[in-house]
Order: sequence, then C-alpha cells, then structure tokens
Amino acid sequence: MATKALAAWTVNLTPSSIPASVQQAAKRSLYNYVSCAIGGSNHPTVTKAHDALEPFFGRPTSTLYGSGGKRTDAQHAALLNGPVASALLAYAEYNGSVSGPEILCALTAGIEASCKLGLAVWPEHYDIGWHITSTTGSIGAAVAVGKLMKLSEDQMAHAIGIASVQVVGLREMFGSDTKSFHPGRAAQGGLLAAVLAEKGYTSSESAIEAKRGWANVVAGGGTPQLQKYVGELGQKWEIEANAFKPFPCGIVCHPAIDAAIQLHHEMERKQFSLKQIEKIELVVHPLVIELTSKRKPKDGLEGKFSVFHGVAVGLLYGKAGPAQYADEVVQDSAVVSLRDQVDAESKKSLAADETYLTVYLKGGDKLEKHIQHAVGSLEVPMTHEQLEEKFIDQAALVLGAEGAKRASGLAWKIGEEEDVAAVLTKI
Amino acid sequence: MATKALAAWTVNLTPSSIPASVQQAAKRSLYNYVSCAIGGSNHPTVTKAHDALEPFFGRPTSTLYGSGGKRTDAQHAALLNGPVASALLAYAEYNGSVSGPEILCALTAGIEASCKLGLAVWPEHYDIGWHITSTTGSIGAAVAVGKLMKLSEDQMAHAIGIASVQVVGLREMFGSDTKSFHPGRAAQGGLLAAVLAEKGYTSSESAIEAKRGWANVVAGGGTPQLQKYVGELGQKWEIEANAFKPFPCGIVCHPAIDAAIQLHHEMERKQFSLKQIEKIELVVHPLVIELTSKRKPKDGLEGKFSVFHGVAVGLLYGKAGPAQYADEVVQDSAVVSLRDQVDAESKKSLAADETYLTVYLKGGDKLEKHIQHAVGSLEVPMTHEQLEEKFIDQAALVLGAEGAKRASGLAWKIGEEEDVAAVLTKI
Repeated sequence: MATKALAAWTVNLTPSSIPASVQQAAKRSLYNYVSCAIGGSNHPTVTKAHDALEPFFGRPTSTLYGSGGKRTDAQHAALLNGPVASALLAYAEYNGSVSGPEILCALTAGIEASCKLGLAVWPEHYDIGWHITSTTGSIGAAVAVGKLMKLSEDQMAHAIGIASVQVVGLREMFGSDTKSFHPGRAAQGGLLAAVLAEKGYTSSESAIEAKRGWANVVAGGGTPQLQKYVGELGQKWEIEANAFKPFPCGIVCHPAIDAAIQLHHEMERKQFSLKQIEKIELVVHPLVIELTSKRKPKDGLEGKFSVFHGVAVGLLYGKAGPAQYADEVVQDSAVVSLRDQVDAESKKSLAADETYLTVYLKGGDKLEKHIQHAVGSLEVPMTHEQLEEKFIDQAALVLGAEGAKRASGLAWKIGEEEDVAAVLTKI
Repeated sequence: MATKALAAWTVNLTPSSIPASVQQAAKRSLYNYVSCAIGGSNHPTVTKAHDALEPFFGRPTSTLYGSGGKRTDAQHAALLNGPVASALLAYAEYNGSVSGPEILCALTAGIEASCKLGLAVWPEHYDIGWHITSTTGSIGAAVAVGKLMKLSEDQMAHAIGIASVQVVGLREMFGSDTKSFHPGRAAQGGLLAAVLAEKGYTSSESAIEAKRGWANVVAGGGTPQLQKYVGELGQKWEIEANAFKPFPCGIVCHPAIDAAIQLHHEMERKQFSLKQIEKIELVVHPLVIELTSKRKPKDGLEGKFSVFHGVAVGLLYGKAGPAQYADEVVQDSAVVSLRDQVDAESKKSLAADETYLTVYLKGGDKLEKHIQHAVGSLEVPMTHEQLEEKFIDQAALVLGAEGAKRASGLAWKIGEEEDVAAVLTKI
C-alpha cells in the first residue's frame, strides 16, 4: 500500500498543486544545496573521491559544482555533488530540457518521500545506527529523478523499490570521509533506480511495506508508522520543516555555538578579553555528548564532531563558518587552549536543542547564555540574508568573492528558469 | 577488532599460503562464475540494465561476458557481470597486469571475508529480510579488489568500512529483476570502496564490530558471532563449502528437481508415459514453500521461484537448465498442466534439503523418490564434468556450441595465466 500510494502521490504532484509557502521552501532548499555543493567541493573528502573515480568517468554531461566548469557523467556527478538534489540536477543537465518549476516540483516530491519514510521508522532506525539522511535519501533521489523522467505510477513504484534495496549509511562513520560518502552514494543509487525503472526494470510493488520490505527490515526493532506518515503526503509538507545549518558541523552542536557567538559579542561589548577566562561550563542534552564529544580533534573533519571546538571558535572569532573548520584553525594553539577550558555536562532534563553556556572570568565575573533554540532552527529560521551570507561565505573560499556573488545570483533563480541546464553549467 | 583482524588476514594471504584443495575450490568457483556470467548475459534483466546504463559508461577497459567482446568501464562491468568475482575480474582488466594465482588468491580472500561475516550474522540477518549474498558481497568484493591493489592493512580496513555502509539487497525482491541487481550492485560498491580506500579515503577501523557498526546494525535482532567466525579465518575455508548450482533457480528447489529428473529417467526405463500421471505429491521443508511457491509463474523469472515448475520440467524433460526456464517453456501448455498436478506439503521434520516426490499413475502404480541431498550439494558435489556440462549448456545459448567450448577451455585456465587481462578479453 505505502509503495503504490507514495508512487501515485509523487507522480501526480504538479508545480501548480504545491502551495506557495512550500514552493518558497523548495527554492530556499535548492539555493542552500548549491551553496553547500560549492562550499564542499574542494574538501579533501571530495577531491580524494574525485581522483579515485576519474578513471571511470563517462560522457561529461553534468557539472561538478565549484570545479570551474568541469563536468562528468550524471552518475558520478550525483555521487560527488552530495545529497538528493545532486541526483536531480545531474539528471536535469544530462536530460537537457528541464524547467525550473519542474525542478522545484521534483525536489519537493523527493524530499517529501524521504522525510515521510524517515519519520515512519524514526527513532529506532536511527538509534540502532543507520544514517537516516542517506538511508531515506536514495528513495528520495529516485522519486525526484523519476519525476523529471515523468515515470508512470507503476514505474515509480519500481523505482522506489530499486532504491529501497540500496540501504547506505552507518552512524559509525561519523567523523570520517565515509559520512559524506553516504548521501552521495544514496543520490547515485536513487538516480540509478529511476534510470533502471524507466527501462522496465522490476522490483516489488510493496517494496516499502512488505513483511520483509524496506520499512520492517530497517526499523531497528521499532514498528514502522507507514500509514500515518504516507497518509499525510500533501497534507503536511516536510520541506517546510527543512531547516538550514548556519554552521558546517553536526546540528546538535549548533545551540552551543550560537551561545558562544553571542557571548563573544557580549565580551566585546563589555571589553573583556579571552585571557581573562578562568573556565567555561557547557550544559547540553546527552545526545550532544554522544555525537560530538571529540575532545582533541586532529583536523577540520574531526572538529565537526567536537562541540568543544565549536564553542572555542565561537568565543574566539564570533563565527563558526567553513574557515573556522580549516585544519590550521583546529590545530591553532589559541583554539586548542580555549577548547581545553570547556567543561561539558549532559542533562536529560534539557531539550535536545537547548544549551546553557557560562563563562567564568578571573576576578569573579561571569557571563551566561541560555539558548532555547539555535539560529537555523525552525523556531529561529535563517533569514534570506543569512542564507545568502552563508552561500557567499562558503562559496568564496572556492570561487573567490566575485564568483561567489555571481553563483549566488544564479542559484536563487534556478527555480524560475525555462532551461535549468543552461544555468547550471554557469555555476 | 574484527575489522582489523579481517584486514590483516586478507592483506597477508598469499597464493602459496593457500592449501591445494582450497586453490582447487577457488578455480572451480571462478570457472563456474564465468559460466554463469556468460549464461546470464542476454537475460532481459541484464539487457535492460545495460540499455539503461549505457549513456553513463566510461572508458571501456573491462569485458562484458557473453557480449561478443563489448567492454565498459570497470564500475559498470562489476555491476553488469554479477557477484564478487565480477568486481575482481573487471578490476584486473582495468589494471592490466594481474596474474592467475593473484586472481585466485584475491577471490579466496573475498569469499572467505564475505562468508565469515555472513555466518556471524546468520540466521537472524537473513530471517529479517536481508539478501545475504549481496549484503556480505560488497565487503567480499572490496577485499578481493583490495588484494589486487595490494592495499596496506590500514587501507584494507577502510575499504572494508566503506563497503560495509553499502548494505544492498532485500529478500522482498526475489522474483523480480532487482534480485539480480543486488549482487551486481554489491560488487560495484565493493570495487568503489577499494578504489576510494586506495586514495586514502577513511571510514572506521571498527566498522564491522562497533556498537553501531555493520554487524550489530544488520543482525536483525541476533547477536553477531564475530569473534568465532573471524577467528576461524585460514583455519576453516568457506570456499571449500561453496557448492555449485546445477539448476538456475532457487537452491531450495533443487532436491525436488533432482527427484523429478530421477523419476523422469525411471519412467522412461519403465516405459510409463506422462499422460498416465494421476497426481504428483511433493513433501518438502517449509522454507521451500516460503521461498518458491509461485503456483502460476508467468515467465522464466517467476519460474525460478516455483518449485512446481521445477518438478514439472524435471519430469517432462529430465532437465532443468536455462532452456527450461525460458518464457516459452514456462508458458507451454504441457508444462502448465503438469505443474497444476503437483501438490506440495511442507513438513518441519524434514531437513531443509530433503524431499519426497511421489508420482501416482492411473491404474494404481506409483513411483517414489527420496532425496537426502540434491546434486550440487556439499554431500553430492557436481563433478568437473558436470560443471563443464553446465558451462557449455548455458554458454551455448549465448555464444553457440563452438564458442561455448572455447570459452570453457579459457575459463578453466584463468588461474594459471601470467596475464589474466589477455585471456578475459577473449572470453
């Protein structure tokens, strides 16, 4: 039931049937995706993968963002550019005649599909160790690409099925290159599923809900709530709940970083110096410690899994952008010593996105900050301007300031273009 | 522990450290693989996938078996040619300078790795719904290709980790094209993992055994027995227990088919005609019914999941080769009516590979056959001659009788060649 219901809903979704607020959310999601794809493009995780895969590249149809116009085949572009949207854009360029509204509609369909399925198996699926972004992302990518291909309901059900057998991503890999591999491989797997289904490749029309189908197998001991969530398709739009990350690290660190940045500004206003700090006390939800407790991160990648590093750079620079996660910064002695001053305590009574940060100064002063919801959360969403600042901040490291501004202008307009491919090649 | 132990064992395995009987088993496995890769090469499941993926093919370095010399990039060859060995041979051709003994050694390492891990999570892993061939196959393929690349122990551990996050294959897909996709995608995922690890791509050095690592996540509620099975590496060789399938259908059907073929010959000897059959009674283990109870298969693919079809062609033709699973045969009226005469009963008291088949004839005669272990089982292994007959039987449908004989001769010798690539291009 869930498989065919999902297939039917996604196949019948049209640009005009999507509420304006949802279209707006899709546009922001797409813009933010391009920003991250460019920003991450020269990270060693990507360049190592690029070098490893180059011997296998096929006909260059699809842009590698941030590469200065390099292209590869759509399969490899989906892998190297990242999550669900990467499969969509890689296929759009390959196909060559896709409009902006079609892209936004397909993106919406893909995101709704993967989120509803994720919710149906949450939290046990994640608790047992699956990286839910990618385990549901392959299905979302199949749906998104399948939309662009205008698959029939039957074909879409088979695409969903072929994607569902490719379950990629373990939380054990957080902190290694393979974490980034997960969404890329999921996107590629979803693209592959749609491409196969288009040629009549069969899977199962009850792939998701069957006794030994996706949901039951990956539910981690929980009972999948398929009827509830699949039934909500088009009623409650998950893409509107898609928050954007202001900081390039695990989301659970964000409240602590937000607090640190606010205290940085408060210390500046009150003319306190960092040298006066005696100790730093952080109180967080236990999940923060579970996921991001790297005490002595060795490089930028490990820094992303260290709430201590996030607090240190927040206090030191008043920023926690990509530049603050460069290897040099993570290894910088001022950062290291500040990081070592942070004591963290976990309290179950806190909400997952709640934090108390207290800075004790020599002489008895203390500064406190209580964050209920971090910037970038649903409650405190990033503004358009903040999203643009984030875009330019990370794209500039790859394209330079001018290139970043130009790319930002183009990325805002993808959803309105008549021919998306023409724009994508310019980004 | 298991990850590094596995990496260390596989890295240190050398052709000369492998017992002769194991080398012989590897040679037979490789020969049988080539036979199946050719035999399956013009199946619609493969041709559909080929057509869907052709637009993405890269530099043609690796042979598509049975295609008359067509080549594609190693990634797509691994996907289209099938299981663990496909990744190995595709990479060997890409690399260009690999010897036969190296191939056999790498194949052995890959098969040992995937079998030990499979045993460690069996039976709950399979029971919950994972297709164990492919879920362990990606890791086996990574190990096999990693051997050819001469990865260090660290790199091999990371290759195992990158492969471990790509968990592909659900039993729900049995009976559809996607079942065949599983081992192919696993092989491709393993090749990809090795290629990435070679460039320094990191995963986790406790990918397999970590709390949220592969074994615990996919164990389906069971307790992984890693220490036991990984500890047995090199002590007990699983490749020696690699049986070959005489019939191109689910292994659980084989005892029933074996019985039917033997009764076919008995009826010939006793000059009974099939028209005299009043009813056919089959008694099997419950798993046979669970997996292969398609009463009215519509085509060859569904026929493979019908023990009734297997019994019917066994009785009718005294054979159950690829020709007996052609769509025309599955739809043939004589086959259909014989199939409809088969009554099956499942008994828990039987061994999984035990069968009683009774043919009741009009006039009161009856013929009975009790199979304890089917041909192709460990207890009744296929002889070299039977393996060769199987090779030629299935390859002839693709290459013609002469081509099949030639390919068989070449395939037997792969393990002895100085330069494997030169032979593979001729198959």
